[in-house]
Amino acid sequence: MNSPIYCVIMAGGAGTRFWPISRSSRPKQFLDILGTGKTFIRSTFERFAEFVPAENFLVVTNGAYRDLVLEQLPEIGADQILAEPLGRNTAPCIAYAAFRLKATAPDATMIVTPSDHLILNEAAFRTVVEEAVGFASSHEVLVTIGVQPTRPATGYGYIQADRPIRADGMNKVKTFTEKPNAELARAFLASGDFFWNSGIFVWQTRTILNSLAALLPDTWQLFSSIESAYGTPDEQQCIDRIYPECRAVSVDYGIMEKAGNVYVRCGDFGWSDIGTWGSLYEYMPRDEAGNTQGADRILFDSRGCLVKTPQGKLAVIEGLEDFIVVDTEDVLLICPRENEQNIKKFIDTVRFNGGDRFI
Amino acid sequence: MNSPIYCVIMAGGAGTRFWPISRSSRPKQFLDILGTGKTFIRSTFERFAEFVPAENFLVVTNGAYRDLVLEQLPEIGADQILAEPLGRNTAPCIAYAAFRLKATAPDATMIVTPSDHLILNEAAFRTVVEEAVGFASSHEVLVTIGVQPTRPATGYGYIQADRPIRADGMNKVKTFTEKPNAELARAFLASGDFFWNSGIFVWQTRTILNSLAALLPDTWQLFSSIESAYGTPDEQQCIDRIYPECRAVSVDYGIMEKAGNVYVRCGDFGWSDIGTWGSLYEYMPRDEAGNTQGADRILFDSRGCLVKTPQGKLAVIEGLEDFIVVDTEDVLLICPRENEQNIKKFIDTVRFNGGDRFI
Repeated sequence: MNSPIYCVIMAGGAGTRFWPISRSSRPKQFLDILGTGKTFIRSTFERFAEFVPAENFLVVTNGAYRDLVLEQLPEIGADQILAEPLGRNTAPCIAYAAFRLKATAPDATMIVTPSDHLILNEAAFRTVVEEAVGFASSHEVLVTIGVQPTRPATGYGYIQADRPIRADGMNKVKTFTEKPNAELARAFLASGDFFWNSGIFVWQTRTILNSLAALLPDTWQLFSSIESAYGTPDEQQCIDRIYPECRAVSVDYGIMEKAGNVYVRCGDFGWSDIGTWGSLYEYMPRDEAGNTQGADRILFDSRGCLVKTPQGKLAVIEGLEDFIVVDTEDVLLICPRENEQNIKKFIDTVRFNGGDRFI
Repeated sequence: MNSPIYCVIMAGGAGTRFWPISRSSRPKQFLDILGTGKTFIRSTFERFAEFVPAENFLVVTNGAYRDLVLEQLPEIGADQILAEPLGRNTAPCIAYAAFRLKATAPDATMIVTPSDHLILNEAAFRTVVEEAVGFASSHEVLVTIGVQPTRPATGYGYIQADRPIRADGMNKVKTFTEKPNAELARAFLASGDFFWNSGIFVWQTRTILNSLAALLPDTWQLFSSIESAYGTPDEQQCIDRIYPECRAVSVDYGIMEKAGNVYVRCGDFGWSDIGTWGSLYEYMPRDEAGNTQGADRILFDSRGCLVKTPQGKLAVIEGLEDFIVVDTEDVLLICPRENEQNIKKFIDTVRFNGGDRFI
């Protein structure tokens, strides 16, 4: 029996790390921050639509973003959007999708993916995912897609595989490690056993449901309690009722770190979560002085600057080194590139000063 | 016989030193850069309207700014705007006004004033001007208003008075000096004989016409050649014809430095020509870190910054010291405050790159 392949896009994030470009009303997944001509969620959809039919997508997002999803993915129907009333991290998000599929496509093999990552080598990525799908659809396993690390990044989670490592195959997972410090990251890289955690998972619906029941029984119980509602007109009302009771927990912490049947399929496909202005800077075209390129900008005596201005606006900058300059219609941000982690502080201050309209 | 007092406002400047706030389509005199609630030209008009009737104003400006003048000074009629087809510095501007008055008010005493300066002590200023008017209306003299210098400014012209100096009266002028270097400026200040040249003049119409005939005969000849046209429907057409033939020359260089009947009336009335972002900075309210104040701005670890953003726009700035940050709808300028003289270079580069729409 061929298990149908479903793709669950997790698009509920309201991240603020790309503020002031990303706003609570239009977070990163609905933006084309890289200037590719497509938003992150659109690129994610097209990546999987190569081998998953449009009607087999589910998009889990905040209800406030329903229209943005439909605008970006006109191929899908409104019933394919699973609207969370509030964010509770990835485990409830995945539980919701799994229970929906149990009702509508119980034999499905699920690909679960974030909606806002960059993948440069789509062909290599597809090979990796298809192998993971083939393995997961025929085994009771939880497969995670790992990324061959290229530097001792401290901003990513790491997956340690059991030796011997099969670079082109399935590897049993030994440990998950959250963001390591620099020393540990260097040791991870040197060992050859560690891979970046892309947050992309493949499993059968019944497998993840079994894992939820065993490892996050409270979450499983909540979603199970409204089992008769999935796929019916009552679903939204029931979801809205149980969601506030869910514990916010990530699938990595709640399931993957504790389950015994976790495998990693590694690949090298030019992945980045583009999680900060700094990581975006690495992927933007730059001139010989290290300033990001773009029309209508003139820089004097400036180096290493990430400059982002609205189309048609001129920026004239002198004497800045390693700064972020992000200009939007109603907010101008200027700060040292190395201080990008302060953006959260900036936002808190703006909010404290009554500037909710700027967030 | 009482000579009627006329006020000639010179408002033809298309200066770029406040770019990108000032534009060729709306230069500084038509802006409220200081945030007083009034444009410079409006403040200038109101200053003199205290003792000059509205119908006795003439505004010499570029034809392109006619509507801006009428918008700012609804009290005056269209016939009180003398429209230059192109700028030729102050001597032709003054010659035009003098010839118009010769035709319409030959006995007038003229106050000639720039349109874009700051005067903080209006009462002290009025006293000085009224004394100058009293003296000029009864003598064949060219009176210039001098300003008690408060620092060895290198950006102003200086007027040296003959000793003994009468701080509260008329002084014969000994020399005019253009912008001195710092050492000379310090010597000027120490001597007590030197005053800043405010560019405000008082004289009778016939006196300035006699001086023009004697000292700038080519200019006098051109304006004299269309004498029958002043105050008639032919005036504009004639002016448009002769203006391109005028030499561009300042009244300071062409008349004041060479005439023998020049007097200076000094005063201390809080004057500044607000000629640069730096001089504007000195007059803007600042916080304890020396950053200019304003709504919707949050600065971290920043000092000495001049920040100017459109109303309702939020600026979040970290790590800038002594910078100018000027944001407009279509241009963002960021440069060190000490490099404000580079603005001309910026504009040249913008123009070279085809950015005329930004100038």
